[in-house]
Amino acid sequence: MSDAIVGLDVGGTKIAAVAIDDTFQIIGEAVSPVPRGGSVSVDDVLTAMTQAVRAVTGGADPNRLGAGLPGMVTREGRMTVAPNLPAANGVDFTAELGRIFPSAQVVVLNDADAATVAEHRVGAAVGHDNVLMVTLGTGIGGGLILDGKIRRGAHGFAGEIGHMVLDPSGPACPCGQRGCFERYASGSGLARLAREAAMSGHLTSLVTALGGDSEAVRGEDVAAAARAGDGEALAVFDELGWWLARGVANLAMIVDFSLVVVGGGLSDIADLFLPAAQRHLPELCEGWSYRAPLPIVTSTVGTRAGALGAAVMAADL
Amino acid sequence: MSDAIVGLDVGGTKIAAVAIDDTFQIIGEAVSPVPRGGSVSVDDVLTAMTQAVRAVTGGADPNRLGAGLPGMVTREGRMTVAPNLPAANGVDFTAELGRIFPSAQVVVLNDADAATVAEHRVGAAVGHDNVLMVTLGTGIGGGLILDGKIRRGAHGFAGEIGHMVLDPSGPACPCGQRGCFERYASGSGLARLAREAAMSGHLTSLVTALGGDSEAVRGEDVAAAARAGDGEALAVFDELGWWLARGVANLAMIVDFSLVVVGGGLSDIADLFLPAAQRHLPELCEGWSYRAPLPIVTSTVGTRAGALGAAVMAADL
Repeated sequence: MSDAIVGLDVGGTKIAAVAIDDTFQIIGEAVSPVPRGGSVSVDDVLTAMTQAVRAVTGGADPNRLGAGLPGMVTREGRMTVAPNLPAANGVDFTAELGRIFPSAQVVVLNDADAATVAEHRVGAAVGHDNVLMVTLGTGIGGGLILDGKIRRGAHGFAGEIGHMVLDPSGPACPCGQRGCFERYASGSGLARLAREAAMSGHLTSLVTALGGDSEAVRGEDVAAAARAGDGEALAVFDELGWWLARGVANLAMIVDFSLVVVGGGLSDIADLFLPAAQRHLPELCEGWSYRAPLPIVTSTVGTRAGALGAAVMAADL
Repeated sequence: MSDAIVGLDVGGTKIAAVAIDDTFQIIGEAVSPVPRGGSVSVDDVLTAMTQAVRAVTGGADPNRLGAGLPGMVTREGRMTVAPNLPAANGVDFTAELGRIFPSAQVVVLNDADAATVAEHRVGAAVGHDNVLMVTLGTGIGGGLILDGKIRRGAHGFAGEIGHMVLDPSGPACPCGQRGCFERYASGSGLARLAREAAMSGHLTSLVTALGGDSEAVRGEDVAAAARAGDGEALAVFDELGWWLARGVANLAMIVDFSLVVVGGGLSDIADLFLPAAQRHLPELCEGWSYRAPLPIVTSTVGTRAGALGAAVMAADL
């Protein structure tokens, strides 16, 4: 398997690895933990990545290797800053992986960009040349396909849509701004919207079930209540859908996509908020009546999107 | 001159035309009025465009013709909607101009996109592959260069940045939304910010000079007062600069440019607000300390940018 094409997706807790053939079919996959803790060095991270690669090649070195990394990754593959992977800050991963696998061509990119490539080439966005990917996890990541290619921007940081400010007097964000997109339409946004609803006297059944502590309401609780038909829980998801549509509408006016793909952990419960987002979109997008419909769909590649997209990028080298 | 390359820029009141050689040097130019009034037909507009073309070719037909049009223009060159050129709504300008100039290759695009192309190829953005153009007129238009090319989006509507919502509870916009970018950082935005300042008890010297009518304050008045050193007028421009930076910061996080070019009528007084925009940008852009500097500069092509960019697009056909 020395002609293997391998993709990695290094997250905050897990490394996903896939090996693909030249038709982008997955022929091997593995998931392993990311070394964590205060004493973790960049060598520990690189060792874990190396083991993940060899786990899907039967021990051989790949000849093409792609890696999706969290945070701000330069076009050259240097990790500028990764809040969830501090040992990696400042590391030139293209150089390091090239040193470990000297016979491999290596490409390193942001994990959301990698996931976008996967959806575009083998997933929900096949056939679309202008696509917005929105990954709803704890925060929000994104990727832009324009004229058929992932667009990484001048330095590699394109698609950092989670900190687009939607309301300058909105809730504070750890980034230092207020009213960022990810304060509303993400896992942490859901939790915040739910707490706000609870503290405003809504979600009464749920708060009662939690012993009256409105600050203890979690996203999972509201999702379960919405599934059970709780009207106030459904209203929280409608609000989340409105904010998702608000962000998507801004992005649609700026870039003019033909499709929006929603991925990330929160997309597992997309049925609770995507219909609302789709319904609110027309009222939030200038000139809607002159525009073509803009479907918002869920990712089809799923949790392997980052690793698969990194492998596809490597195959394209 | 049957090998002429001609570009038109059809505005709300004027048609600008240029003829260029194959090094993009302007070898002929003309400006003529746009037919206006309730009885104006599309044929009147096309006749005026035809005359403008022939005015710069010495009467000959061009063999390449580009036209920048206001409003939402499809990639195929159909005018979807043009608030300032209602006679043109729904017209397929590529087809109509091809009929009038059967020997010409024709390209039709949005006027702000055309101006962006001009700045990128022969203006302020030469050498930059990822550029945001912001045209500050009565409203705000925009254009995106990514990976070295103008990106027109799925349908041709990319760069409609003026209706990006910056504050959902902000001032009403004629588009039906609230808090659009162009409610703050444009010619009409300046007038609004000035009236708000005047009605809040600021701009006192100016209001006194206008006979005490705070609603009569115009953008030109505030600009003149700022030039004369009026601190409250300078504060209005600082506020406009803040909002320009707010919009640019969102766009920079989404697309990651290496340069922002500001054009349009308001850029004639850019010295009154661009320094403020540049100063506010770092505080409004997530991860600024990890980013490269993002200069905001003024257009160098100026009022001919739309016509010249349309001609360059035609030359590239």
